[in-house]
Amino acid sequence: MATLALASWATNLTYSDLTTSVVDSAVKSIYNWAGCAIGGYGQDAPSIAQATTQAFFGGPPTSSILGSNGSIGDTYADAQLAALINGIASHIDDYDDTHLETIIHPTGVVASALLAVAEWQGPVTGEDFITALVAGIEAECKLGLSVYPQHYDIGWHITSTTGSIGAAVAVGKLIGLNTTQMQNAIGVASTQVVGMQVFFGSMTKSFHVGRATQGGMLGALLAKNGYTSSLEALEAEYGWLHVVSTRENATAYFDQLGKVWEIEKNTFKPFPCGIVMHPTIDGAIQIHNESASQGKSVSSIKSINLVVNSQVLVLTGKTAPTTGLEGKFSIYHAAAVGLLYGEATPSQFTDEVVNNATVVAMRQKVNVTTNDAEYNTAQALVTVEFDDGSTVEKNIVHAIGSLENPMTEADLKKKFIDQVTKQIGPARAEKAYAAFTNIGNMTDIGALRTLY
Amino acid sequence: MATLALASWATNLTYSDLTTSVVDSAVKSIYNWAGCAIGGYGQDAPSIAQATTQAFFGGPPTSSILGSNGSIGDTYADAQLAALINGIASHIDDYDDTHLETIIHPTGVVASALLAVAEWQGPVTGEDFITALVAGIEAECKLGLSVYPQHYDIGWHITSTTGSIGAAVAVGKLIGLNTTQMQNAIGVASTQVVGMQVFFGSMTKSFHVGRATQGGMLGALLAKNGYTSSLEALEAEYGWLHVVSTRENATAYFDQLGKVWEIEKNTFKPFPCGIVMHPTIDGAIQIHNESASQGKSVSSIKSINLVVNSQVLVLTGKTAPTTGLEGKFSIYHAAAVGLLYGEATPSQFTDEVVNNATVVAMRQKVNVTTNDAEYNTAQALVTVEFDDGSTVEKNIVHAIGSLENPMTEADLKKKFIDQVTKQIGPARAEKAYAAFTNIGNMTDIGALRTLY
Repeated sequence: MATLALASWATNLTYSDLTTSVVDSAVKSIYNWAGCAIGGYGQDAPSIAQATTQAFFGGPPTSSILGSNGSIGDTYADAQLAALINGIASHIDDYDDTHLETIIHPTGVVASALLAVAEWQGPVTGEDFITALVAGIEAECKLGLSVYPQHYDIGWHITSTTGSIGAAVAVGKLIGLNTTQMQNAIGVASTQVVGMQVFFGSMTKSFHVGRATQGGMLGALLAKNGYTSSLEALEAEYGWLHVVSTRENATAYFDQLGKVWEIEKNTFKPFPCGIVMHPTIDGAIQIHNESASQGKSVSSIKSINLVVNSQVLVLTGKTAPTTGLEGKFSIYHAAAVGLLYGEATPSQFTDEVVNNATVVAMRQKVNVTTNDAEYNTAQALVTVEFDDGSTVEKNIVHAIGSLENPMTEADLKKKFIDQVTKQIGPARAEKAYAAFTNIGNMTDIGALRTLY
Repeated sequence: MATLALASWATNLTYSDLTTSVVDSAVKSIYNWAGCAIGGYGQDAPSIAQATTQAFFGGPPTSSILGSNGSIGDTYADAQLAALINGIASHIDDYDDTHLETIIHPTGVVASALLAVAEWQGPVTGEDFITALVAGIEAECKLGLSVYPQHYDIGWHITSTTGSIGAAVAVGKLIGLNTTQMQNAIGVASTQVVGMQVFFGSMTKSFHVGRATQGGMLGALLAKNGYTSSLEALEAEYGWLHVVSTRENATAYFDQLGKVWEIEKNTFKPFPCGIVMHPTIDGAIQIHNESASQGKSVSSIKSINLVVNSQVLVLTGKTAPTTGLEGKFSIYHAAAVGLLYGEATPSQFTDEVVNNATVVAMRQKVNVTTNDAEYNTAQALVTVEFDDGSTVEKNIVHAIGSLENPMTEADLKKKFIDQVTKQIGPARAEKAYAAFTNIGNMTDIGALRTLY
């Protein structure tokens, strides 16, 4: 209740509540601060920061806002705004990619930063773009491996906490930082730790990605202009690795840079929701389909029992979601829609479906037990009992979309076309698919916007 | 070495290092991401974020950059840029205010956010401005009390980690958020945790203040436009209080909001450097003055022994600073300049003085021992031994600038005039002093810029 107490107190505070001494202290505080601000302006740091950020604030609309299509505001914006919006948009459906060992969704932050900068500072070839992307993704995933699971268990949203550093590395690579500059870029990025799990199920979860995108980009740009940081930002006693985690084994993973490629382990979501719900949805859909083929109605389901890893309840334990965004973090909702609809697309995570009476009733039939010894987060046992006493059981060892049971290229194309068509229609969706799949051959990434 | 290893690897990576499988994974990552970004754009969150930030990015130059004086770029900028620059500038000299119980420098973040918004969205009366400022400062200091010292011991820079929330509360107050909106504002602000101690002594320390200013302001503005967050951002298991600290007693302090005023405990620095060095400087200056009056030269000092709290070495233990910014976090440098110059003004924390041979030699005569049982961070024992075997000792119980031994109004005015004169000359400095000290009587804070 601390938030409510603070918010409500502050909302209700009036000047008449303040004593003379309070006002006096306030005035001293203000002019002391103003003196510091005026006096400090001539230092290098304010000048560099101003010179760096003036390119965004009032700068020309150099970079694409993907999918804007003229529907809201401008299609193009300055690089920082484009980075924020593309970062948010790419994560808002919880449909992006996953590095399963760390639960990092690695591309959103890195690619949103890179595209914005590539369009602004280009020409950038497809090859250079990809190189920079890999640099950023390896950076964030190695960092993730270095701090997972302790970092995640504390409550951090690992996608954005590592993502800002990944974005800095990627952009730094693209704009040609030297080693010292790159160290400084990592420093500025690492000190901006954005994202906690309490915000899962709200718009703020996506803000994490957008803000980390901006922060990482800003780190690289500041470093290029000479902004100083620490050269030991990650490993120092009061630096990133120790502050955000109790683990201290970073070196082990950094030794593997370029030897073990984390981007190779990247996976793609078949369902637009928390990744740890995917095995359950997989099982539920299989049961839906088998029941249908046997002429058994899902309306005769009596109870649904799930056995899952305990992290599933930690991350997606919302029993009574009321919005689509909350539904994406409800294992109960996941099981219900899988059984009822036989699919889990964006349509199953709308406010309407989350509040649909039949869905709510099905959700209430779901019981969850945890068994960490036998089930990791990529596995689930789904057991459905029908009114006639019969049961069906699905033991999901490798959920669809996992590394062992990945989406096919056809699956991925279908997903892309479905998503993009909603926003810009089928013809442009096909063109966009062609353009983005051909990105490695482009001589200038800036031309992407002309291709669809 | 992890930073160096990563930076150096990323800098040297080329496309030819990548295997076919890596490139293939990269391409899939990119178009999967692009699909997510295009498909997700129609959601509320990207629209609200875009609508909110369009006011800054390319918006009119509504807000003052204090002290810019036409010397670098424009004197006015959009509110976010002004907030960043004023936040950085107000902290770059380590000369701002201190809430000693928490070592929070409370005004920089809150006032930088408020001035920028007040000028942009005004007219705002001096009274409303002060009310909002107090709301923000109480918020950040109560949060600080709730997590200090554990939060600080982990390595966080408490000024910015609590400051973003303080700025959100202050700006939210100024723009009239309702309770739910304020909760959301606190949520968005709290998930942006900026600032670690490894960056003390670099420009990034001030960036913490500027970035927290922006983040808190953004939280309030997003919340006003309906951006959703958590209503339990602070107290939830995976929310701010638990993620950034091991303490869980927030409620105890929030019950005292409006009863115990933290702003009343605010103190003002006589020396532009880390606050825990102030007792040592106080003692060193006293010894300098006494020695001078006794005709004893500081060049005949043989050794300097300090007894201080162990936090002094943690925070300001740099034995061999090479820049002015590093000198601000070197207890060795602090003792040396106090003894040599008899003062510690901005002039003693330049690159030149830090590298001056006489200063370096004096620094090397300093020995530090810690004694937490007898010395808190506001106390120090300074003992100087001269070549003739004589010793002088100063035991500082309440350093100048502390709550018990505060700077007088005359001291504060002198500090303001000295700082401001450097930047805009003595005549305007006097006018600025008059304007800012009269702030409580203003009918529109926006007129401040016309008064000096």
